[in-house]
Amino acid sequence: MPKLIDHDERREHIIDVTWALIVEGGIEAATMREIAAKAGFANGALKHYFPSKAKIVEGTFDRAMRIVGSGVNTDQGRGLAGLRALGLAALPKDEASITAGRVLMAYWEMSLANEEMRDRYEAFLSDWRALILRYLQEGRADGDIVTSTPDEVLVDELVLLTAGSNIMTLVGRKYTTAELVERHLEEYLGRLTRP
Amino acid sequence: MPKLIDHDERREHIIDVTWALIVEGGIEAATMREIAAKAGFANGALKHYFPSKAKIVEGTFDRAMRIVGSGVNTDQGRGLAGLRALGLAALPKDEASITAGRVLMAYWEMSLANEEMRDRYEAFLSDWRALILRYLQEGRADGDIVTSTPDEVLVDELVLLTAGSNIMTLVGRKYTTAELVERHLEEYLGRLTRP
Repeated sequence: MPKLIDHDERREHIIDVTWALIVEGGIEAATMREIAAKAGFANGALKHYFPSKAKIVEGTFDRAMRIVGSGVNTDQGRGLAGLRALGLAALPKDEASITAGRVLMAYWEMSLANEEMRDRYEAFLSDWRALILRYLQEGRADGDIVTSTPDEVLVDELVLLTAGSNIMTLVGRKYTTAELVERHLEEYLGRLTRP
Repeated sequence: MPKLIDHDERREHIIDVTWALIVEGGIEAATMREIAAKAGFANGALKHYFPSKAKIVEGTFDRAMRIVGSGVNTDQGRGLAGLRALGLAALPKDEASITAGRVLMAYWEMSLANEEMRDRYEAFLSDWRALILRYLQEGRADGDIVTSTPDEVLVDELVLLTAGSNIMTLVGRKYTTAELVERHLEEYLGRLTRP
Protein backbone atom coordinates (compact mmCIF):
# COMPACT_ATOMS: atom_id res chain seq x y z
CA MET A 1 0.00 0.00 0.00
CA PRO A 2 1.41 3.43 -0.88
CA LYS A 3 2.16 5.67 2.04
CA LEU A 4 -0.38 8.43 2.40
CA ILE A 5 1.00 11.90 2.74
CA ASP A 6 -0.61 13.84 5.54
CA HIS A 7 -0.82 17.30 4.03
CA ASP A 8 -2.13 18.99 7.16
CA GLU A 9 0.76 17.58 9.14
CA ARG A 10 3.25 18.89 6.59
CA ARG A 11 1.67 22.32 6.65
CA GLU A 12 1.92 22.36 10.44
CA HIS A 13 5.55 21.31 10.18
CA ILE A 14 6.29 24.16 7.76
CA ILE A 15 4.63 26.57 10.21
CA ASP A 16 6.72 25.12 13.09
CA VAL A 17 9.90 25.77 11.15
CA THR A 18 8.86 29.28 10.10
CA TRP A 19 7.82 30.11 13.67
CA ALA A 20 11.28 29.11 14.93
CA LEU A 21 13.05 31.11 12.19
CA ILE A 22 11.03 34.24 13.02
CA VAL A 23 11.66 33.90 16.76
CA GLU A 24 15.38 33.51 16.14
CA GLY A 25 16.03 35.96 13.33
CA GLY A 26 12.89 37.93 12.52
CA ILE A 27 10.88 38.17 9.32
CA GLU A 28 14.00 38.49 7.17
CA ALA A 29 15.43 35.19 8.38
CA ALA A 30 12.31 33.34 7.28
CA THR A 31 13.09 33.13 3.56
CA MET A 32 11.39 30.51 1.39
CA ARG A 33 14.83 28.97 0.83
CA GLU A 34 15.56 28.73 4.55
CA ILE A 35 12.10 27.44 5.40
CA ALA A 36 12.40 24.73 2.72
CA ALA A 37 15.87 23.73 3.93
CA LYS A 38 14.86 23.49 7.60
CA ALA A 39 11.63 21.68 6.79
CA GLY A 40 13.49 19.14 4.62
CA PHE A 41 11.90 20.08 1.30
CA ALA A 42 13.38 20.74 -2.10
CA ASN A 43 13.25 24.45 -2.88
CA GLY A 44 10.18 24.43 -5.12
CA ALA A 45 8.25 21.85 -3.10
CA LEU A 46 7.04 24.34 -0.49
CA LYS A 47 4.65 25.71 -3.10
CA HIS A 48 2.64 22.49 -2.96
CA TYR A 49 1.65 23.44 0.56
CA PHE A 50 1.70 27.24 0.54
CA PRO A 51 1.62 29.46 -2.54
CA SER A 52 3.76 32.20 -0.96
CA LYS A 53 5.72 33.30 2.06
CA ALA A 54 2.79 35.57 2.97
CA LYS A 55 0.55 32.51 3.32
CA ILE A 56 3.06 30.73 5.55
CA VAL A 57 3.43 33.80 7.75
CA GLU A 58 -0.39 33.96 7.95
CA GLY A 59 -0.18 30.42 9.31
CA THR A 60 2.17 31.58 12.09
CA PHE A 61 -0.17 34.52 12.79
CA ASP A 62 -3.18 32.22 13.13
CA ARG A 63 -1.22 30.07 15.55
CA ALA A 64 -0.11 33.12 17.59
CA MET A 65 -3.71 34.30 17.80
CA ARG A 66 -4.80 30.84 18.94
CA ILE A 67 -2.25 31.08 21.78
CA VAL A 68 -3.67 34.48 22.75
CA GLY A 69 -7.26 33.30 22.26
CA SER A 70 -6.78 30.17 24.38
CA GLY A 71 -6.89 32.45 27.44
CA VAL A 72 -10.23 33.84 26.29
CA ASN A 73 -12.20 30.89 24.98
CA THR A 74 -12.45 29.10 28.27
CA ASP A 75 -15.33 29.86 30.60
CA GLN A 76 -14.05 32.90 32.47
CA GLY A 77 -17.25 34.73 33.16
CA ARG A 78 -18.78 37.88 31.80
CA GLY A 79 -18.47 41.63 32.28
CA LEU A 80 -15.50 42.85 34.28
CA ALA A 81 -14.21 39.31 34.96
CA GLY A 82 -14.38 38.48 31.27
CA LEU A 83 -12.58 41.70 30.42
CA ARG A 84 -9.78 40.93 32.88
CA ALA A 85 -9.35 37.44 31.38
CA LEU A 86 -9.29 38.86 27.86
CA GLY A 87 -6.81 41.57 28.84
CA LEU A 88 -4.55 39.05 30.56
CA ALA A 89 -4.72 36.79 27.51
CA ALA A 90 -3.59 39.62 25.23
CA LEU A 91 -0.70 40.72 27.45
CA PRO A 92 2.79 39.22 27.16
CA LYS A 93 2.83 37.39 30.49
CA ASP A 94 4.89 34.25 29.90
CA GLU A 95 7.27 32.68 27.41
CA ALA A 96 4.46 31.41 25.15
CA SER A 97 2.68 34.75 24.91
CA ILE A 98 5.89 36.77 24.53
CA THR A 99 6.85 34.48 21.65
CA ALA A 100 3.38 34.87 20.14
CA GLY A 101 3.89 38.64 20.41
CA ARG A 102 7.20 38.28 18.55
CA VAL A 103 5.51 36.42 15.72
CA LEU A 104 2.69 38.97 15.64
CA MET A 105 5.27 41.75 15.26
CA ALA A 106 6.84 40.01 12.26
CA TYR A 107 3.35 39.62 10.80
CA TRP A 108 2.63 43.32 11.35
CA GLU A 109 5.88 44.29 9.65
CA MET A 110 5.16 42.16 6.59
CA SER A 111 1.46 43.09 6.47
CA LEU A 112 2.22 46.76 5.84
CA ALA A 113 3.33 45.86 2.32
CA ASN A 114 0.58 43.28 1.76
CA GLU A 115 -3.04 44.39 1.69
CA GLU A 116 -4.49 40.91 2.19
CA MET A 117 -2.41 40.44 5.34
CA ARG A 118 -3.44 43.83 6.63
CA ASP A 119 -7.10 43.07 5.99
CA ARG A 120 -6.72 39.79 7.83
CA TYR A 121 -5.31 41.57 10.87
CA GLU A 122 -8.05 44.21 10.80
CA ALA A 123 -10.69 41.47 10.65
CA PHE A 124 -9.12 39.90 13.74
CA LEU A 125 -9.04 43.31 15.40
CA SER A 126 -12.70 43.86 14.57
CA ASP A 127 -13.70 40.63 16.38
CA TRP A 128 -11.41 41.47 19.27
CA ARG A 129 -12.92 44.94 19.68
CA ALA A 130 -16.44 43.52 19.52
CA LEU A 131 -15.57 41.13 22.34
CA ILE A 132 -14.12 43.94 24.50
CA LEU A 133 -17.25 46.01 23.87
CA ARG A 134 -19.51 43.13 24.87
CA TYR A 135 -17.68 42.68 28.17
CA LEU A 136 -17.85 46.44 28.83
CA GLN A 137 -21.59 46.50 28.21
CA GLU A 138 -22.12 43.46 30.45
CA GLY A 139 -19.99 45.11 33.14
CA ARG A 140 -22.18 48.20 33.00
CA ALA A 141 -25.34 46.10 33.17
CA ASP A 142 -23.88 44.30 36.20
CA GLY A 143 -23.12 47.65 37.87
CA ASP A 144 -19.35 46.92 38.04
CA ILE A 145 -18.31 49.38 35.33
CA VAL A 146 -19.43 52.91 36.17
CA THR A 147 -16.84 55.22 34.58
CA SER A 148 -18.18 58.13 32.56
CA THR A 149 -15.62 57.48 29.80
CA PRO A 150 -17.55 56.17 26.76
CA ASP A 151 -17.19 52.49 25.86
CA GLU A 152 -15.70 53.24 22.44
CA VAL A 153 -12.86 55.16 24.12
CA LEU A 154 -12.35 52.31 26.59
CA VAL A 155 -12.08 49.81 23.73
CA ASP A 156 -9.37 51.93 22.09
CA GLU A 157 -7.51 52.34 25.37
CA LEU A 158 -7.34 48.60 25.98
CA VAL A 159 -6.21 47.93 22.41
CA LEU A 160 -3.46 50.59 22.65
CA LEU A 161 -2.40 49.27 26.06
CA THR A 162 -2.07 45.68 24.89
CA ALA A 163 -0.40 46.57 21.56
CA GLY A 164 2.04 48.87 23.36
CA SER A 165 2.72 46.19 25.96
CA ASN A 166 3.46 43.57 23.34
CA ILE A 167 5.89 45.85 21.55
CA MET A 168 7.65 47.22 24.60
CA THR A 169 8.09 43.79 26.20
CA LEU A 170 10.10 42.92 23.09
CA VAL A 171 12.01 46.12 22.28
CA GLY A 172 12.20 47.70 25.72
CA ARG A 173 12.56 44.65 27.92
CA LYS A 174 14.91 46.55 30.19
CA TYR A 175 11.88 48.51 31.40
CA THR A 176 8.77 46.60 30.40
CA THR A 177 8.20 43.34 32.26
CA ALA A 178 5.27 40.93 32.52
CA GLU A 179 4.55 42.14 36.08
CA LEU A 180 4.49 45.74 34.94
CA VAL A 181 2.07 45.28 32.05
CA GLU A 182 -0.24 43.28 34.31
CA ARG A 183 -0.14 46.15 36.80
CA HIS A 184 -1.15 48.56 34.04
CA LEU A 185 -4.06 46.31 33.11
CA GLU A 186 -5.22 46.39 36.75
CA GLU A 187 -4.92 50.20 36.79
CA TYR A 188 -7.06 50.31 33.66
CA LEU A 189 -9.66 47.94 35.13
CA GLY A 190 -9.65 49.90 38.39
CA ARG A 191 -10.50 53.10 36.52
CA LEU A 192 -13.57 51.40 35.03
CA THR A 193 -15.01 50.86 38.49
CA ARG A 194 -14.76 54.53 39.50
CA PRO A 195 -17.28 57.20 38.38
CA MET B 1 41.32 69.96 -9.47
CA PRO B 2 39.86 66.56 -8.63
CA LYS B 3 36.24 66.60 -7.64
CA LEU B 4 35.85 66.10 -3.92
CA ILE B 5 33.41 63.41 -2.88
CA ASP B 6 31.07 64.58 -0.18
CA HIS B 7 30.83 61.47 1.96
CA ASP B 8 28.21 62.85 4.31
CA GLU B 9 26.01 63.73 1.37
CA ARG B 10 26.35 60.22 -0.03
CA ARG B 11 25.50 58.68 3.31
CA GLU B 12 22.40 60.88 3.51
CA HIS B 13 21.45 59.81 -0.01
CA ILE B 14 21.78 56.13 0.95
CA ILE B 15 19.53 56.76 3.96
CA ASP B 16 16.99 58.58 1.72
CA VAL B 17 16.84 55.57 -0.57
CA THR B 18 16.56 53.08 2.29
CA TRP B 19 13.88 55.16 3.96
CA ALA B 20 11.79 55.09 0.76
CA LEU B 21 12.29 51.33 0.34
CA ILE B 22 11.15 50.66 3.93
CA VAL B 23 8.10 52.89 3.60
CA GLU B 24 7.10 51.15 0.37
CA GLY B 25 7.96 47.53 1.09
CA GLY B 26 9.12 47.12 4.68
CA ILE B 27 12.40 45.88 6.09
CA GLU B 28 12.57 42.97 3.64
CA ALA B 29 12.44 45.26 0.60
CA ALA B 30 15.49 47.18 1.81
CA THR B 31 18.16 44.69 0.70
CA MET B 32 21.74 45.82 0.20
CA ARG B 33 21.33 45.00 -3.49
CA GLU B 34 18.20 47.09 -3.84
CA ILE B 35 19.63 49.98 -1.83
CA ALA B 36 22.77 50.00 -4.00
CA ALA B 37 20.73 49.88 -7.21
CA LYS B 38 18.40 52.73 -6.20
CA ALA B 39 21.28 54.82 -4.87
CA GLY B 40 23.24 54.36 -8.08
CA PHE B 41 26.15 52.41 -6.60
CA ALA B 42 27.86 49.23 -7.69
CA ASN B 43 26.92 46.39 -5.40
CA GLY B 44 30.03 46.36 -3.22
CA ALA B 45 30.43 50.14 -3.09
CA LEU B 46 27.84 50.63 -0.33
CA LYS B 47 30.34 49.18 2.12
CA HIS B 48 32.52 52.26 1.74
CA TYR B 49 29.78 54.22 3.44
CA PHE B 50 28.10 51.69 5.73
CA PRO B 51 29.59 48.37 6.86
CA SER B 52 26.21 46.60 7.01
CA LYS B 53 22.48 46.87 6.45
CA ALA B 54 22.07 47.23 10.22
CA LYS B 55 24.12 50.45 10.14
CA ILE B 56 22.05 51.88 7.29
CA VAL B 57 18.83 51.05 9.11
CA GLU B 58 20.28 52.73 12.21
CA GLY B 59 20.68 55.81 10.02
CA THR B 60 16.96 55.71 9.16
CA PHE B 61 16.14 55.24 12.86
CA ASP B 62 18.21 58.28 13.84
CA ARG B 63 16.39 60.32 11.24
CA ALA B 64 12.98 59.07 12.43
CA MET B 65 13.88 60.01 16.00
CA ARG B 66 14.99 63.46 14.84
CA ILE B 67 11.54 63.93 13.27
CA VAL B 68 9.92 62.92 16.57
CA GLY B 69 12.39 64.96 18.61
CA SER B 70 11.89 68.10 16.51
CA GLY B 71 8.57 68.53 18.31
CA VAL B 72 10.31 68.35 21.66
CA ASN B 73 13.51 70.33 21.27
CA THR B 74 11.84 73.65 20.69
CA ASP B 75 10.99 75.83 23.65
CA GLN B 76 7.60 74.48 24.68
CA GLY B 77 7.64 75.09 28.37
CA ARG B 78 7.98 72.85 31.38
CA GLY B 79 5.81 70.56 33.48
CA LEU B 80 2.42 69.66 32.08
CA ALA B 81 2.85 71.84 28.97
CA GLY B 82 6.21 70.20 28.23
CA LEU B 83 4.65 66.78 28.73
CA ARG B 84 1.83 67.56 26.30
CA ALA B 85 4.34 68.75 23.67
CA LEU B 86 6.45 65.64 24.16
CA GLY B 87 3.41 63.36 23.97
CA LEU B 88 2.17 65.08 20.82
CA ALA B 89 5.63 64.78 19.26
CA ALA B 90 5.67 61.03 19.91
CA LEU B 91 2.19 60.40 18.52
CA PRO B 92 1.54 59.68 14.84
CA LYS B 93 -0.28 62.90 13.99
CA ASP B 94 0.64 63.70 10.38
CA GLU B 95 2.25 62.17 7.31
CA ALA B 96 5.82 62.84 8.53
CA SER B 97 5.30 61.28 11.96
CA ILE B 98 3.30 58.30 10.65
CA THR B 99 6.13 57.63 8.20
CA ALA B 100 8.68 57.97 11.01
CA GLY B 101 6.60 55.42 12.96
CA ARG B 102 6.73 53.07 9.96
CA VAL B 103 10.53 53.31 9.87
CA LEU B 104 10.70 52.80 13.63
CA MET B 105 8.65 49.63 13.29
CA ALA B 106 11.07 48.24 10.69
CA TYR B 107 13.93 49.12 13.05
CA TRP B 108 12.18 47.35 15.95
CA GLU B 109 11.66 44.23 13.82
CA MET B 110 15.31 44.08 12.77
CA SER B 111 16.62 45.02 16.24
CA LEU B 112 15.18 41.89 17.82
CA ALA B 113 17.83 39.84 16.05
CA ASN B 114 20.62 42.40 16.58
CA GLU B 115 21.77 43.21 20.09
CA GLU B 116 23.55 46.43 19.13
CA MET B 117 20.38 47.76 17.51
CA ARG B 118 18.33 46.77 20.54
CA ASP B 119 20.78 48.49 22.89
CA ARG B 120 20.60 51.62 20.76
CA TYR B 121 16.82 51.67 21.04
CA GLU B 122 16.93 51.10 24.79
CA ALA B 123 19.40 53.98 25.15
CA PHE B 124 16.98 56.21 23.26
CA LEU B 125 14.16 54.95 25.47
CA SER B 126 16.18 55.70 28.59
CA ASP B 127 16.61 59.36 27.56
CA TRP B 128 12.96 59.58 26.58
CA ARG B 129 11.79 58.21 29.93
CA ALA B 130 14.09 60.60 31.81
CA LEU B 131 12.55 63.52 29.92
CA ILE B 132 9.00 62.35 30.74
CA LEU B 133 9.96 61.98 34.40
CA ARG B 134 11.44 65.47 34.50
CA TYR B 135 8.23 67.01 33.11
CA LEU B 136 6.15 65.02 35.59
CA GLN B 137 8.25 66.24 38.52
CA GLU B 138 8.05 69.82 37.27
CA GLY B 139 4.29 69.45 36.87
CA ARG B 140 4.01 68.31 40.50
CA ALA B 141 6.20 71.18 41.68
CA ASP B 142 3.95 73.57 39.72
CA GLY B 143 0.84 72.07 41.35
CA ASP B 144 -0.64 70.99 37.98
CA ILE B 145 -0.04 67.26 38.42
CA VAL B 146 -1.76 65.95 41.53
CA THR B 147 -2.64 62.32 40.76
CA SER B 148 -1.74 59.76 43.42
CA THR B 149 -0.42 57.38 40.73
CA PRO B 150 3.38 57.21 41.14
CA ASP B 151 5.53 58.92 38.52
CA GLU B 152 7.22 55.68 37.46
CA VAL B 153 3.82 54.20 36.58
CA LEU B 154 2.92 57.36 34.67
CA VAL B 155 6.14 57.13 32.64
CA ASP B 156 5.29 53.54 31.67
CA GLU B 157 1.72 54.48 30.77
CA LEU B 158 2.82 57.24 28.42
CA VAL B 159 5.41 54.98 26.77
CA LEU B 160 2.85 52.19 26.27
CA LEU B 161 0.29 54.67 24.96
CA THR B 162 2.64 56.18 22.38
CA ALA B 163 4.12 52.82 21.30
CA GLY B 164 0.63 51.33 20.97
CA SER B 165 -0.53 54.40 19.04
CA ASN B 166 2.34 54.18 16.60
CA ILE B 167 1.67 50.51 15.92
CA MET B 168 -2.10 50.72 15.68
CA THR B 169 -2.03 53.76 13.39
CA LEU B 170 -0.11 51.54 10.98
CA VAL B 171 -1.72 48.10 11.36
CA GLY B 172 -5.19 49.10 12.52
CA ARG B 173 -5.73 52.30 10.58
CA LYS B 174 -9.39 51.41 10.13
CA TYR B 175 -9.85 52.20 13.81
CA THR B 176 -6.85 54.20 14.99
CA THR B 177 -6.64 57.73 13.63
CA ALA B 178 -4.51 60.75 14.47
CA GLU B 179 -7.51 62.45 16.12
CA LEU B 180 -8.17 59.41 18.26
CA VAL B 181 -4.63 59.01 19.61
CA GLU B 182 -4.53 62.72 20.40
CA ARG B 183 -7.78 62.32 22.33
CA HIS B 184 -6.21 59.47 24.33
CA LEU B 185 -3.23 61.68 25.14
CA GLU B 186 -5.60 64.36 26.45
CA GLU B 187 -7.43 61.74 28.57
CA TYR B 188 -4.09 60.67 30.00
CA LEU B 189 -3.05 64.28 30.72
CA GLY B 190 -6.48 64.99 32.24
CA ARG B 191 -6.03 62.12 34.70
CA LEU B 192 -2.77 63.66 35.90
CA THR B 193 -4.62 66.78 37.04
CA ARG B 194 -7.13 64.87 39.19
CA PRO B 195 -6.31 63.54 42.69
